[in-house]
This record gives sequence, C-alpha cells and structure tokens, in this order.
Amino acid sequence: MKSLKLLPLAAALAVVPVMGLAQDTSEAAAAVDNAFIFNTLLFLIGGFLVFWMAAGFAMLEAGLVRSKNVTTQLTKNIALFSIAAIMYWLVGYNLMYPGDGWWMQGLLGPIFATADIGGDPALETGYATGSDFFFQLMFCATTASIVSGTLAERIKLWPFLIFTVILTGFIYPIEASWQWGGGFLSEMGFSDFAGSTLVHAAGGFAALAGALILGPRLGKYKDGRVNPMPGSNLALATLGTFILWLGWFGFNGGSQLALGTEADANAVAVIFANTNMAAAAGAVAALILTQIMYKKVDLTMVLNGALAGLVSITAGPLDPTLFGALWIGAVGGVIVVLAVPFLDKLKIDDVVGAIPVHLIAGFWGTLAVPFYTEGTSFVTQIIGFAIIGAFVFVVSTVVWLILKATMGIRVSEEAEINGLDVSELGMEAYPEFTKG
Amino acid sequence: MKSLKLLPLAAALAVVPVMGLAQDTSEAAAAVDNAFIFNTLLFLIGGFLVFWMAAGFAMLEAGLVRSKNVTTQLTKNIALFSIAAIMYWLVGYNLMYPGDGWWMQGLLGPIFATADIGGDPALETGYATGSDFFFQLMFCATTASIVSGTLAERIKLWPFLIFTVILTGFIYPIEASWQWGGGFLSEMGFSDFAGSTLVHAAGGFAALAGALILGPRLGKYKDGRVNPMPGSNLALATLGTFILWLGWFGFNGGSQLALGTEADANAVAVIFANTNMAAAAGAVAALILTQIMYKKVDLTMVLNGALAGLVSITAGPLDPTLFGALWIGAVGGVIVVLAVPFLDKLKIDDVVGAIPVHLIAGFWGTLAVPFYTEGTSFVTQIIGFAIIGAFVFVVSTVVWLILKATMGIRVSEEAEINGLDVSELGMEAYPEFTKG
Amino acid sequence: MKSLKLLPLAAALAVVPVMGLAQDTSEAAAAVDNAFIFNTLLFLIGGFLVFWMAAGFAMLEAGLVRSKNVTTQLTKNIALFSIAAIMYWLVGYNLMYPGDGWWMQGLLGPIFATADIGGDPALETGYATGSDFFFQLMFCATTASIVSGTLAERIKLWPFLIFTVILTGFIYPIEASWQWGGGFLSEMGFSDFAGSTLVHAAGGFAALAGALILGPRLGKYKDGRVNPMPGSNLALATLGTFILWLGWFGFNGGSQLALGTEADANAVAVIFANTNMAAAAGAVAALILTQIMYKKVDLTMVLNGALAGLVSITAGPLDPTLFGALWIGAVGGVIVVLAVPFLDKLKIDDVVGAIPVHLIAGFWGTLAVPFYTEGTSFVTQIIGFAIIGAFVFVVSTVVWLILKATMGIRVSEEAEINGLDVSELGMEAYPEFTKG
Repeated sequence: MKSLKLLPLAAALAVVPVMGLAQDTSEAAAAVDNAFIFNTLLFLIGGFLVFWMAAGFAMLEAGLVRSKNVTTQLTKNIALFSIAAIMYWLVGYNLMYPGDGWWMQGLLGPIFATADIGGDPALETGYATGSDFFFQLMFCATTASIVSGTLAERIKLWPFLIFTVILTGFIYPIEASWQWGGGFLSEMGFSDFAGSTLVHAAGGFAALAGALILGPRLGKYKDGRVNPMPGSNLALATLGTFILWLGWFGFNGGSQLALGTEADANAVAVIFANTNMAAAAGAVAALILTQIMYKKVDLTMVLNGALAGLVSITAGPLDPTLFGALWIGAVGGVIVVLAVPFLDKLKIDDVVGAIPVHLIAGFWGTLAVPFYTEGTSFVTQIIGFAIIGAFVFVVSTVVWLILKATMGIRVSEEAEINGLDVSELGMEAYPEFTKG
Repeated sequence: MKSLKLLPLAAALAVVPVMGLAQDTSEAAAAVDNAFIFNTLLFLIGGFLVFWMAAGFAMLEAGLVRSKNVTTQLTKNIALFSIAAIMYWLVGYNLMYPGDGWWMQGLLGPIFATADIGGDPALETGYATGSDFFFQLMFCATTASIVSGTLAERIKLWPFLIFTVILTGFIYPIEASWQWGGGFLSEMGFSDFAGSTLVHAAGGFAALAGALILGPRLGKYKDGRVNPMPGSNLALATLGTFILWLGWFGFNGGSQLALGTEADANAVAVIFANTNMAAAAGAVAALILTQIMYKKVDLTMVLNGALAGLVSITAGPLDPTLFGALWIGAVGGVIVVLAVPFLDKLKIDDVVGAIPVHLIAGFWGTLAVPFYTEGTSFVTQIIGFAIIGAFVFVVSTVVWLILKATMGIRVSEEAEINGLDVSELGMEAYPEFTKG
Repeated sequence: MKSLKLLPLAAALAVVPVMGLAQDTSEAAAAVDNAFIFNTLLFLIGGFLVFWMAAGFAMLEAGLVRSKNVTTQLTKNIALFSIAAIMYWLVGYNLMYPGDGWWMQGLLGPIFATADIGGDPALETGYATGSDFFFQLMFCATTASIVSGTLAERIKLWPFLIFTVILTGFIYPIEASWQWGGGFLSEMGFSDFAGSTLVHAAGGFAALAGALILGPRLGKYKDGRVNPMPGSNLALATLGTFILWLGWFGFNGGSQLALGTEADANAVAVIFANTNMAAAAGAVAALILTQIMYKKVDLTMVLNGALAGLVSITAGPLDPTLFGALWIGAVGGVIVVLAVPFLDKLKIDDVVGAIPVHLIAGFWGTLAVPFYTEGTSFVTQIIGFAIIGAFVFVVSTVVWLILKATMGIRVSEEAEINGLDVSELGMEAYPEFTKG
C-alpha cells in the first residue's frame, strides 16, 4: 500500500528531464513522508522523557519519606510503572481508544495476538502506532505515580499494587477516553491539553480517596498539633523534582502530537518555553511566600511549587504568552504553600504533598485555560473537572473500600512504627547509615 | 562532491515554470537528504541515551556495594567509561570495522591523523561518521561497565583499569566485529540485534572469568552458609535501574541504525514499545516470584528483574509482538531470581548480580530470537553464543591470570575489611553518615 | 506570509501530470521546510539537555558540601535556575539580542505583551523563536550555576539570589551580546563556539569576585595549613558529573544552531564525539596525575578533570580532530589537578573547584581554539578573554560589595559552624543520617 500511495509523485518526477544517476537518492527522499518520521520522533522523545518522570516520582517520594520506609516506596514506584505498562497494553489502550479496534480485538485479544504494533506502519495516521502507544502509556503510568506518594509510610504493598492494576487498566483509560478518545467531554468543549485534569487531578483524586480511607500516619495529628515528619533525603527529593521538570517537556511538548510542519514545530517550542516558565514561576512564588509567611525558605515547598507550576500550565501550555505562563505557574506555587497546611487542618495526611500539587493545582490549571485559549469557557472547564473528579473519586473509593474489607490496606501499628522496610520487605534502604 | 551529486535535481526543478524568489528555500530543502539527518539524529539521541547508561551502572553499583567501597566503585565507573572512549578510538573502532580503512590508517594512525571524523560528511553511508562512532563507542563502554559490578569490593583499582584497556581496545571490538563488522557470525546467520550476546553476555563472561580468579569476598561463604552483604543505598540502586531502563531505549532503538524512512521510524517505535514491555515484565515476574518463594518482595531482585527483561529483549527487540516482549522479558526476570542463589551455591561471588542479568539472561535473549525472527535458528544462536562466550572467557581468563601474576589483582585482607575507599583511595564516599 | 512563501512550489508541482488523490500528502510534505523543523528540534533537544545540567550542578554541589549545608545548596540551585528563567525573559534575552526588537518592546514590554513567542513561526530565521529562547536561557542559567558552588557553606541565601538576579538579567546578557549578539568581540574575530569564556569563565569570574570578598570558610586555612573539608556524598557528586557530561552534548552540539543540512548534521555529530573525547581525556589525565602526584587516585579530581575537559573543548568543539579533542581535554584535566592546590595557596576557598574547572580551564579552552580553527589568533583569543573577564569581575565585585555593605553576604560564625541548613532554613537534608 505504501508504494502505491507514493507512486504518483515518483512518476511525476520521472517525467522531468535532465535526470542523472545521483538523483535516485533525492527522489527517494522526496517520496518519504518526513512528517511521519517527525511525528513519530516526537512521540518517542516525548515518551522517553515522560518515562523518566517515573524515576522522578521515585526519587521525590524516596526523599520525602523517612528512611525506614524508603525501600518500600522505591518498590512501589518501580512496580507501579511496570504494572501500568502491562495493564495499559492488556486493557487500557483499547479501552481509551475504542475506535482503534483494528489494534486489538477485545479484552483478551492482545494475549493471543501475533501481529500488533509491528505489523503496519499505519501511514494514514501520520505516525507510527507503536510510538503513540509508547507515549500514551507513560501518561497512564504517571497517573498511578501520583497516588503512591500520598499514601506512603502506612499502606500495604500488595493492596496498593492491586489498586494500581485497576487504576491503570480501567479508571484512567475510561476517564481519559472521555476527552482524548473523542468522548463526550471533548464534544462539550472541555479543554485539557496535556492532562492537568485527566492525569494530575485524576491521580490526585485517587490519592485523596485512599488517604481518607487509610487515615493519617500514627502520631501525625496529636493533641491538636501537626507533628512534622521530615523527609529523609532532600537531595533525592530535589533530584526527583529536576527529573520531573525535565520529563515535563516531553509530557507537554509531546502532547502537541505532531512535529511534521513548521506550525507544529513552533507550537512544541512555545510549549517547552511556557512549561519551563511556569515551573520557574511556581518555584519562585513558593520561595518568596515561604520567606514571607515563615521567615524561612522551605525547600520542600519550593520543590512542590515548581511541580505545581508545571501542573498548572499542563492544561493549556500552548496558548499563553510567557507572561501568562509566569502568572499561571506562580499561582500554582502559591496554591501549594497555602494548601499543604490546609490539608493538615483537615487531618488529611498527604506525605509528599501530591494532592495540593496535582489535584488542587490541576484544578487551577484547568480553570485557567480560558484566559488564553479561545473557544473555551470557565463553566465548561469546571464541569469537566467535576465530572472527572467525581468519577475517579467515587470509583477509587469503592475500590479502596473493597480492598480494605477483603485484604486490609493498612499495615499493623507495630509495622508502621518499625518501618515498612523491615516489617514488609525485610530490607533496609540505608542499612549502614541511620542513627541508632 | 556534494553539490555535484545534488545538481541534477536542482536543474530539473529549475525548468518547472511559475518560480518565484521564495522558492529558493524550498528547492534547497528538497535537495537536502533528510534521511541523512534523521539517521544521524538517531545515532546521536541513541548515543547520548546509551552514554547515560554509564551513569546508571555507576549508581546501581554504588548503591549495591557497602558504603566503605562506594568511592572506589564510583571511580572505577567513571574511569572505565573514559578509558573505553579513548581505547575505542585508538584501536577498537578500526579493529571492529576493518573495511572502514579510510577512517584511520592502522593502529597508530589516529594519533597522528589531522583529519578524521570532521573531514567528510560521507554522504554515501547515509549518516554522519561521527555519529556512528559516537554511538558505537557507547556499546563498547557498556561491555566494560558490566564487569565492574561483579568484581566489586575486593579488586584493586589499577589491574581492573588495565583489564578495561584490553577489553575495550581489543576483546570487545574483535568479537563484535565477527557479527557487526560483517564477520563470520553474521555470515552463518547468527542474529543479535542490539547485543544480548555481543555486549551483555560478553561483559558477563569477562566478569565471570574475573570472579573465578579473584574469589569471593571475605566471609561471603562461610561454614556452608551464604552471608548476605546488603547494599548501602537502595535509592541509588533504584535510580541506576531507572537510568539504565531509559538508556536502553537508545541502546535498542538506536540499533535500528536508520530513521530516514517510514519503515525505519516504525521499527524504532516498535523497538521502544517492546523494550519497555520486556523491562516491565521482568520486574513484575521478579516481584511475584520473590513474593511466592520468599513471602517477601525483594527490591534488588525486582531491579535486576527489570534489567534482565531488558537484556532478554536486546537480541531481538523488533520482531516480537508486545506479548512476545512480555513473555521473553518475564522469563528474564524469572532467570534472575533463580540464578542469583544458584551462583551463590557455586560460590561465585557476583556483588551486583551482573552474571545472572547480563550473561544468563543474555543467553536467554539470544536463544529466544527464533521464536519471532524468521531466518534464524536455535542451533545457530547457541553456536554463536558459545563462540563469543568461549572467546571472551578464555581471553579474559588469560588476561586476569597475567594481571594476577604480575601486579596482583586482589587487595589485602586488611584493606578489604577496612574498605577499599580508605585503603586504596583514602577518601570516603559518605564521611559523615556511616555508623561507628 | 507562510502560505505566500510556499505557494510557488505547490503551484509548480501542480502542473506536473499524473496526479492522484494520494499525492496530496507528498505535495504537502515537499512544501514543508524540513530544515525549520530540524533546527527547532536541535534547539529543543539541546535545550532540555542543558536544562538537565542544572540538576547536575545541584547534585555535584550537594555532594561536595558537608551534610549540614546540603539543603541550602539545593535550595540555591533550584532557585537560581528559576530566577534565571524569569530574568532572562524579563530583560536578558532582549539585552543580548538587541536587534530582535520585534520580540519585545523595551524593558517592561514583556510584562504586558499579549503575543510573543507564540505569535509567529518566524520562518525567515529558520527556526522557531521559542526554541531559540528556550535554548539560550539555559546558557544564562548555567553561568549562575557555576557561582553557587564556589561560595557554598558560608554565603547567605538571599544576597546570593539577588546577585543571581543581576547576573542573569544583566551581566551575562551584556557580555554574551558582545559575541553572540553580533557585538564587537565577534567583529574583532574572537571565537568562542559554545561558551568556554562567555559562560564558563564568566561564571568563574563572578564566583572569584565573590570568593575574594566573602573570604574562606572558618578553619579552612589555619596555622599555614589547608584543612580538608570532605564532601558529604561522593555518589551524588559523581551523579552530578555524569549529568553535566550528558547535558554538555546539548550545550556544545546545540550551539551549532542548525541541523537542517547534511553539513550541519555532520557538524553536530563531530561535536558530540569531540565533546565526549575531551571529557574522557580530562578524567583520565586527572586519574593518572593524582596517582603520580599523591600515589592515590582522587575521585573528586577525576570528576573535576572530566568537567575541565568539557569546559576546555567548549570554545571550539567542531574543528579539532578526535586527537585534538583528546589533548585539549587532557590539558584541562591537568590544569584542575594543579590549580586546586594553587588556589588553596592563595587562600581562595572554592568549595567545589569551580574556578579551576570553569575559569582556568575556560581560559585554556579559549586559548586553544587557534590550534584547529582557521582565522583565529591566540592574541585575539587572549584579548577577548581578558575583556570578558575584566568586565564580569569588576561588575561582580561592585555588586558583591554593595550587597555586603547593605544586607551582608556572610552568615554569622555560629550559623556557619552549626550549618546553614539549621540556621538559615531550619531544615536538614539528611535528618536521620548524620553522626552525633
């Protein structure tokens, strides 16, 4: 089919005179659909950058939990990514893009499929199917990464992994299909370019449901006071933030979904610049605000401020000016500084601040889209956010409750005090370092 | 030469009517060989991703050794990469691709060469020579990285570095030339797409030879029992694994060696997706199997499971379906969980599990190629693996024995007990952290 | 304008016979300016790699300071990057490229701009403006990253950040404009491909001015002896070095500024290969030299040797042969090993060795350009370096002195002894790890 399709131009060029042997190369070059290659390359580069975010979440969370729970947190992070990669292939991708039935036949199709992404270059879509699959699964995995931080230091390993199976195989693909699969949200005019709502807030809602059911860590809220439990390794947490920031260029830039025209290349460039600006603004906002509020800069707030800036620009990274990206991101940074103590007041124990960063800043980012993107409305944005939020929160609650009722989701008090690493895995992350 | 070559098309276009000034750009664009640029870009992106694997090995190994040996392990890793970069240029590249005699004249040629990679765009090869050199040397360095982990915590620094000189300048280039340099293995139908055998098993055989001659760490096998010596920093080990996973997209994807056509772009995309799937499957297999066997998940096994999945798919990442990548990778994960205690039974002390991951899973990956790749046979795969293995093992053994006889390869007992960092380098990695 | 420009070719192709429906795609593809996309892609990939260097500096510096100052060092690094991103947009970019007045109108223009990088694909420049902005700001941020390491462990947070505002908004853009903005240095024939002088030495001079005014750490030079203060985490320092090495491919490769022709692709490939070679040679030179001088390999010297090799090749990464890159980089490594104790003799306390690596090796790299690049002269290189150095040093000194006179730049003795983390930020990086 490929040669048939490209034949006419080759034939046309062939009638032009003064042809030599050396021209064959140029002719072939002209016959290649460069846009196909550029688009595929964007998905692959974007995809490996978003993959890298899995490492970022792992380092951020490992740095923000106490040393006695680091091995468990690392295990959850590499396991959840791996589970997402399998579940998104097994069910999720098909569920999210039901129109792409040629890809897999039904739920169990892929298990027996002998030809799938390798079979057909699929020229008509303008990109390699494998690159799209690769890119999209990274978003699914990101959603799951968000959950693990909130629930750290007290959740059992296996119930968490089973929840991940449900989230990555079903919950995320279903809600994302409503927008990105051409579903009713996209039809009603909801706008979420790279997933402030569909990925970040969705992950945040799943985490919130879990946090409410799981309850806070022992001793976190005692006698009306909030007991700080500082992270064990801020170097790792900072590394994780830088990794996430880097990966976000792929997250937002790749979501342009095309690089084969000047306009697309320009759009991706604008997205990179805006994404960077929003992150920087979020960090600076948190830097200044913590100095003002607490007379001391708080590094973990600065890190979360950068991340909140990134989440905030994710719903609409293309249309704002750089100044737009700056103030949208800065508001994200402010949100984090205010929301973290607010959650503590509600006694919702979110170990790494994932709910402020991903859910609340995700709401802000979604809400801010109409400031710069024509054809969108604040009302529709709120409705879309509410629908996704309600769906993910309710389904997640049901799943968490079932898990709680059947296998239990929380470790014993003794295990929590001794740390999950020793009690659940029998393996310390830093066996030679910790005091006493 | 370049303008001569492209002249005919320009001339042809010039006779077409309705030309304006603005067309110059488009004409020039049409005359550019975009495939040359795409291919070069693939090598450069692939190359920097594989470079990144050097950091991955450094972090993985630094995390899996005890804190008293971390500085030494880090030193070995950055030194071995640097030595590989020099030796591969000085001898290796020329030895591996003897047909490319235009590149350098003889062994000492490059030292005096005034023009080399910068001289000629080499349009006829379809990619920039410098990009190929850059990409290929990363594979050479990877082979050396594999060795350092196995021999950690008891080998002297300089003998190890001298071995690296031999390995990267001679052993790897010679054996790799048999397949990738158009040698007899490729002629007999052996198939190893990105190096399950040529890179990973080869590194594993060099490590195995060293481990047998060096002997186990003091106290590792005592009174018939295996004494566990837990790694000092599992966060670093996990980071290293994520880095390697990321780099592997370049390792396997770049090995398509071309990106200039839709078919090539599609192939690279398939390879990315399959590589990711195999890693995920290896991790999940190790996760489940350690839970079943030991009633506890073992993070280091999960990390090595992911790496074994990656090694397993490396010999043939293009042809399997995603389901193929899944089961091939999962078998890799199972291999690691079973092989690590098996090596301990044989009293072969492999500090980071490099032999199970790279040699044994490398064998599995090589063996599995015929399941999906037409024109290959199990027998040829086994023969090819055996030839490479025998060559690398025998030559490495000879080199290790010479090093042992001349300068000694093992530190003193006292130095081993005190740690190589203090005794060999006089510099601790974590001077403020370790207990007592 | 875009469609007008491309119309003629489309029209020309339209008269060629034998056209079918499927041809539309090919026609469109031919009309796309692929060079525009390739150039933009180079800026974006180069830019995200240089962004990653910010993480490299953060990890390198966090690893080389003592644990009591790690949180502060991390905070400075993420804050300085964020400030650079904002200041370079607010003032710097405009100041550096005054000819690009269409971009922003005046100093305060961008604040009120409603359309900026998103507005116009700017086809006539051959790349997306946003990608150029994104790439260039990373160089501005790198300059600031260099300063933070030298002044670690005794400077107050906010004066440092205010200096960063001046450096990234004014000092760097002004001096860089003299060469890269088409200023008088470029007119007089000064050559600095990717910034050995403009970025690295400039950062080094700003750091030197600060170090002289700030003075050494308490107890560093006592009774005529140099008191070593070993870094707290050499694994992080090594990771930082690998990150910087990786990022440098973007730093130097992206500075080719174009990827749209075979010649450009070839040039980028040569730059990648040479950059890698110089780093490797710097590391090996430091490895061997410390063994000879001190009978022990010094890992921190090897790390700085690699970095010095990178800085050395940065002024001219395109023209040398691989052998040229090797010896230029190796001299860089030697410089570091000799310059670090020399600075100590002068009682200039440079915590991470940034002055030897960036200023002194930067001078060497700038000086070495005429060995391989035609049309350059040693005298002009020295003059250019001296002008940049004098400007940055004098202005930085003035700024540091003003900061010292107004708000003070050094923490109290007590705060320095207790560590900046507790005294300035109230937050330890490793609260559970440190002894006593």
